Amino acid sequence: MSAYADEGSERTGVWLVGARGSVATTTVVGALAIRAGLADTTGMVTALEPFAACGLPAVGDLVFGGHDVTQTPWAKKAEELAAGGVLPARLVDAVGTELAAAEGELRAAPASGHPGLDAEQVIADLMSFRERNGLARVVVVHVASTEAAAAPHEAHANENALAEALAAGEPVLPPSSVYAWAAMQAGCGYIDFTPSTGARLPALDQAARRRGVPYAGQDGKTGETLVKSVLAPMMAQRNLRVTSWSSVNLLGGGDGATLAEPAANASKTASKARVLEATLGYVPEGPVRIDEVRELGDAKVAWDLMTFDGFLGARMRLDFTWQGIDSALAAPLVLDLARLVARAHEAGRCGELEDLAFFFKDPAAGVPHDLASQWKRLCAFADDLATIPVLAA
Amino acid sequence: MSAYADEGSERTGVWLVGARGSVATTTVVGALAIRAGLADTTGMVTALEPFAACGLPAVGDLVFGGHDVTQTPWAKKAEELAAGGVLPARLVDAVGTELAAAEGELRAAPASGHPGLDAEQVIADLMSFRERNGLARVVVVHVASTEAAAAPHEAHANENALAEALAAGEPVLPPSSVYAWAAMQAGCGYIDFTPSTGARLPALDQAARRRGVPYAGQDGKTGETLVKSVLAPMMAQRNLRVTSWSSVNLLGGGDGATLAEPAANASKTASKARVLEATLGYVPEGPVRIDEVRELGDAKVAWDLMTFDGFLGARMRLDFTWQGIDSALAAPLVLDLARLVARAHEAGRCGELEDLAFFFKDPAAGVPHDLASQWKRLCAFADDLATIPVLAA
Amino acid sequence: MSAYADEGSERTGVWLVGARGSVATTTVVGALAIRAGLADTTGMVTALEPFAACGLPAVGDLVFGGHDVTQTPWAKKAEELAAGGVLPARLVDAVGTELAAAEGELRAAPASGHPGLDAEQVIADLMSFRERNGLARVVVVHVASTEAAAAPHEAHANENALAEALAAGEPVLPPSSVYAWAAMQAGCGYIDFTPSTGARLPALDQAARRRGVPYAGQDGKTGETLVKSVLAPMMAQRNLRVTSWSSVNLLGGGDGATLAEPAANASKTASKARVLEATLGYVPEGPVRIDEVRELGDAKVAWDLMTFDGFLGARMRLDFTWQGIDSALAAPLVLDLARLVARAHEAGRCGELEDLAFFFKDPAAGVPHDLASQWKRLCAFADDLATIPVLAA
Amino acid sequence: MSAYADEGSERTGVWLVGARGSVATTTVVGALAIRAGLADTTGMVTALEPFAACGLPAVGDLVFGGHDVTQTPWAKKAEELAAGGVLPARLVDAVGTELAAAEGELRAAPASGHPGLDAEQVIADLMSFRERNGLARVVVVHVASTEAAAAPHEAHANENALAEALAAGEPVLPPSSVYAWAAMQAGCGYIDFTPSTGARLPALDQAARRRGVPYAGQDGKTGETLVKSVLAPMMAQRNLRVTSWSSVNLLGGGDGATLAEPAANASKTASKARVLEATLGYVPEGPVRIDEVRELGDAKVAWDLMTFDGFLGARMRLDFTWQGIDSALAAPLVLDLARLVARAHEAGRCGELEDLAFFFKDPAAGVPHDLASQWKRLCAFADDLATIPVLAA
Repeated sequence: MSAYADEGSERTGVWLVGARGSVATTTVVGALAIRAGLADTTGMVTALEPFAACGLPAVGDLVFGGHDVTQTPWAKKAEELAAGGVLPARLVDAVGTELAAAEGELRAAPASGHPGLDAEQVIADLMSFRERNGLARVVVVHVASTEAAAAPHEAHANENALAEALAAGEPVLPPSSVYAWAAMQAGCGYIDFTPSTGARLPALDQAARRRGVPYAGQDGKTGETLVKSVLAPMMAQRNLRVTSWSSVNLLGGGDGATLAEPAANASKTASKARVLEATLGYVPEGPVRIDEVRELGDAKVAWDLMTFDGFLGARMRLDFTWQGIDSALAAPLVLDLARLVARAHEAGRCGELEDLAFFFKDPAAGVPHDLASQWKRLCAFADDLATIPVLAA
Repeated sequence: MSAYADEGSERTGVWLVGARGSVATTTVVGALAIRAGLADTTGMVTALEPFAACGLPAVGDLVFGGHDVTQTPWAKKAEELAAGGVLPARLVDAVGTELAAAEGELRAAPASGHPGLDAEQVIADLMSFRERNGLARVVVVHVASTEAAAAPHEAHANENALAEALAAGEPVLPPSSVYAWAAMQAGCGYIDFTPSTGARLPALDQAARRRGVPYAGQDGKTGETLVKSVLAPMMAQRNLRVTSWSSVNLLGGGDGATLAEPAANASKTASKARVLEATLGYVPEGPVRIDEVRELGDAKVAWDLMTFDGFLGARMRLDFTWQGIDSALAAPLVLDLARLVARAHEAGRCGELEDLAFFFKDPAAGVPHDLASQWKRLCAFADDLATIPVLAA
Repeated sequence: MSAYADEGSERTGVWLVGARGSVATTTVVGALAIRAGLADTTGMVTALEPFAACGLPAVGDLVFGGHDVTQTPWAKKAEELAAGGVLPARLVDAVGTELAAAEGELRAAPASGHPGLDAEQVIADLMSFRERNGLARVVVVHVASTEAAAAPHEAHANENALAEALAAGEPVLPPSSVYAWAAMQAGCGYIDFTPSTGARLPALDQAARRRGVPYAGQDGKTGETLVKSVLAPMMAQRNLRVTSWSSVNLLGGGDGATLAEPAANASKTASKARVLEATLGYVPEGPVRIDEVRELGDAKVAWDLMTFDGFLGARMRLDFTWQGIDSALAAPLVLDLARLVARAHEAGRCGELEDLAFFFKDPAAGVPHDLASQWKRLCAFADDLATIPVLAA
Repeated sequence: MSAYADEGSERTGVWLVGARGSVATTTVVGALAIRAGLADTTGMVTALEPFAACGLPAVGDLVFGGHDVTQTPWAKKAEELAAGGVLPARLVDAVGTELAAAEGELRAAPASGHPGLDAEQVIADLMSFRERNGLARVVVVHVASTEAAAAPHEAHANENALAEALAAGEPVLPPSSVYAWAAMQAGCGYIDFTPSTGARLPALDQAARRRGVPYAGQDGKTGETLVKSVLAPMMAQRNLRVTSWSSVNLLGGGDGATLAEPAANASKTASKARVLEATLGYVPEGPVRIDEVRELGDAKVAWDLMTFDGFLGARMRLDFTWQGIDSALAAPLVLDLARLVARAHEAGRCGELEDLAFFFKDPAAGVPHDLASQWKRLCAFADDLATIPVLAA
């Protein structure tokens, strides 16, 4: 099945939480450009050969909607991204009319202060989106700002307890988890592209399984951690001892500002650090820093220094500098994940999709962090999906 | 089986071509240090868990000999390596007596100008080494200087034709291939750790199969290419388009001088370039440079710059700087390969060991160049070996 | 005096050899944008305070013309530069009308094969340009492609001998020097912004002095060499011994292609190497490489690795990566040099202007190569100019 | 005058605060090695030609003593430094006897908790050192750990008030300033090689001037800031606008641990930041980080990323990686400063020696931070000293 739109096929909804942000806007502009034949699928993993036969919904059959706390129109955000060099200006012009039309599916994020009422609103918005557009299914993708880690609460252990706490208006869930809860209650898949708590609570896992919906996460692996996830296994397989690994991330844009906030920063650096322990079997010393440099805008520069010991104590070094554009790295993965989670939902999978670890900095517990193992598992997942018939439209 | 010496086990010979060079000397000092319990096995792949049960000869059961064109005693070469920071001075001191004793197994490299007579001498030296030391088997490892590519010759196609040409004194084989021929005629395994021609001619493959000996090559993957072999698959799996990849290698020592010679340089850069085509499916533009900087001594500094395109044409960059010590990276791999080829020989394997691609810049044709696939194949090879009984001593 | 146009002031001509190239086009677009108040003078040295009072012609009073072998209109070249990220698209649009009008002052480069006739045509074009536009004086700036070093010829020693050889149609001068000769005969200042021979022959110096015109060169110091010219003195002043300095330059665009040609490459690398000998007092080992990477377009990436020894033999390293846009670095310096040479001409200076060494990779013999000394000398030059009255318009 | 010992010349004392640390130990071993003709003066600025005639005391005529809070013998510390690659083991062996002998001039640092009594003890130790060794004069050099910034106190404004506060046992001075006070009362020059407060209080300046002693500081400019002090002026002189400058410093050893402490870290990063404001005229955004990586030992790795704008808004980048050995960089500067301050004392200078700004990250207020200007000023200072007769021994 092509990555482009197919005649007569079902349509799949993608509900973006943080819909007016850089990642979401790039995702939507990109999908419209691909549908119009104005852009190719570079950067999309699911456009590669191993995914050709596994029945994914076409990019052109995705319908977008979402919530955001801001009011910036997509057209204006897209222009900003073009000015910042993330999007080509000609593409933004070319999809302008469709982008403006798509705007009609955006809704103001609920912020009543009562998580139970917020969840109700999200559920209503999701169901209305699905019905209005005749969608076969909907995947909710969390691409809003990184939150601080959620405070523990005993209602996290059990779906019923959580439902009661929400109904009572207790501040028991952070926003990312309110969305995850709502997604599950509305029968929608859920993807956490950030290090925020999202669906990663036992009560939410219960809800997902009970409702038969799949979810995946967390924290999209777009840049520096991606490189780590191949260099660390290389060191391990060569039996080289990594004596320190220092990481510095400089970034501007909204992310830079959010991550200048200590609690969000702590969530993110914790997520970034996991790959080393998981692939090396130990944690080398060395800082993991995320600093805001507004001038960099949507660009990001990361510098990593590894020191390592070889045979007979030889001391060696490797450093790399990554100069990426986060939104351009994230957006195609959002499309990939939406396609894969929607198809898994169709194929009857529910609960956490561990096979999607390839896409995440902080995948499900016990899943490998080295990219090659994750790739192998992802390809096997695609092969499995290929054996399950696609439902007729 | 431990990487260290076992009581009552067979002994295996390792015949080093270029025995007085940096790599060979580091290999021997390291093996002696490991046997004496003075050094651990960091940098040795076969010391990792997947190789624990596959019956490899212990490092302490390896006996070393070799050929060289120079006369520098191992003790002196080891001191130079200690002064250059490759070997710890205390280790060189500690194994001094054994190193001097081992020197008795070194022979002057044949250089009669008549390749047939040279081959006869090598065969005689190998057989004498095996008998004198009561060795179960011997592996010849080519770690001498990189040669220019061999001129094509019709005798390369057939073992008998080659035997006749050698007997007639025709200059039909470069030195690395004379050693490969001799190894096979003497019933020894052969490893080409350089980009020189070595065993990679049809006539030599025939000889290996007829004599039942295995061989492996070529060009040990010690540093910059190792990094390439994980970064290039990462780019491919993420569907990022590498638009250029430029590589600069600065090195001193003997290697730097050899590689300042254009024909040897061409062999080496060709070998280094293969990984990109094989893993990306295309060859990005960009130079591959190897330059001599004598000041660097045994250290090597490589700088690689990748430019790549992502979603919607986003242009990004990644560069890395590798600061390695080539001898310290190569020596443990020489021990790994000697152990694996000796065990494969014992287990009845012959011809090219494609499963050892993990160790080489330029493995057998058709074998994957991405490190993760090579690792998987190497582990499967180890698992196979584990099913074959080790011969009694 | 402001860098912007002044009412009632004289107008100065700038004749660009290679007028349709990237540097020249960026220069003209920039000057028009500055005159229109659409761009500031970032990157222009003469916009700094030390040059405020030395009577330089305003940028807005510069009139441009030039020769080129190609026919690409400035408007088209400017669009290409905008597409490549060198020029902002909005600026190119804004100055479009004026740029098209300025096109009328461009002429086809002479290429008769007879250097004497070529020189006559250049002289005629220069005089016509000056008269047609009522220019007080004209400066010729060579920004065409780098040539191979000129073959020695005895006519280079003497102006009369050179005049005779040119009249006889002998191939005695490379194109850059034909332009220099013509500039001097036409009473115009001359600037060599490339490593080509230009005015650097005794016969041309004689001509310049006899005609009372100043000249300056050579090879604009825009990027990596600029950095060298501050780091090398730093090492020297701290008595640190630089044991190797390796330089790698990757560039695309026209420059990359030209410099892929070995003779031009040799001219350029020789020019780039001089700064180290001049500032350190010795030449550290290490390659100087210039390689073409077309993908980089107008961008350039240079990587330099220094190894150096400190107290008691401590071995240390410094490496830098420069990511510049050559045209954007060169163009403001072209404006600076045109202003300074025109003003020097007005002030009665003739022959080589050694005080402009700050701008060049390969300044006049015996002039310091360290940037700080060059800066001091440039500021003293400006102070001197400030004491000489500006002629009335 | 040679940098080596002269017959019949006066001897000068160097009193090291933090005498058993890495910098002090390297200084003493180096001076002994130079005196014995076993090492050259690489890394010593005062061994360069401009200082040949200015009457500095020979390195061989320096006598060392000092205070420390630890008891580690110099011989043991020197061995540790040799093991860490800072000092050559053969040098440490060669000067072992003299180093052990010199140990006799070390004293336990006072730590009574009563700053007045501490100061009395330091004064007594200094006077005893001077008399016992027949020294013409003594310079106190503070190379102990970085302190937090001193809390303001009104006694800082006036020498008499300060004397009273000290006598009363008030905690009015941090240790570095107690040493500065004692140095001045004992008629000794003082050098602050750290960012600690040291002599930088009005009361201490009064004391220095009243007693006729010179002082200098502060915070030796050994590595990354040295590079900044040439790159920032380069950017300014080329009118390039630095839009961000991010600095990351990774270091182990004692310094790394000290600087992991937030208040000391704040002192140090503030000191490191000054050069940019002073040379650029503005403060670009971007973090200045100092992080401990114990594995690096005495080595330090710094990475700096500059983004800058050029002509017409062109966006460019420069990054560098500095791999230095701090003690090897600092020790020769300690010798330089001791020689210069001793000679200035002899020549009748008192108060802060602003001309020594070349050596410091945070020189006297109003003194230039660009290295070239500092170099010029230092050379002029040397020229002045050369006009003043050296006192007979």
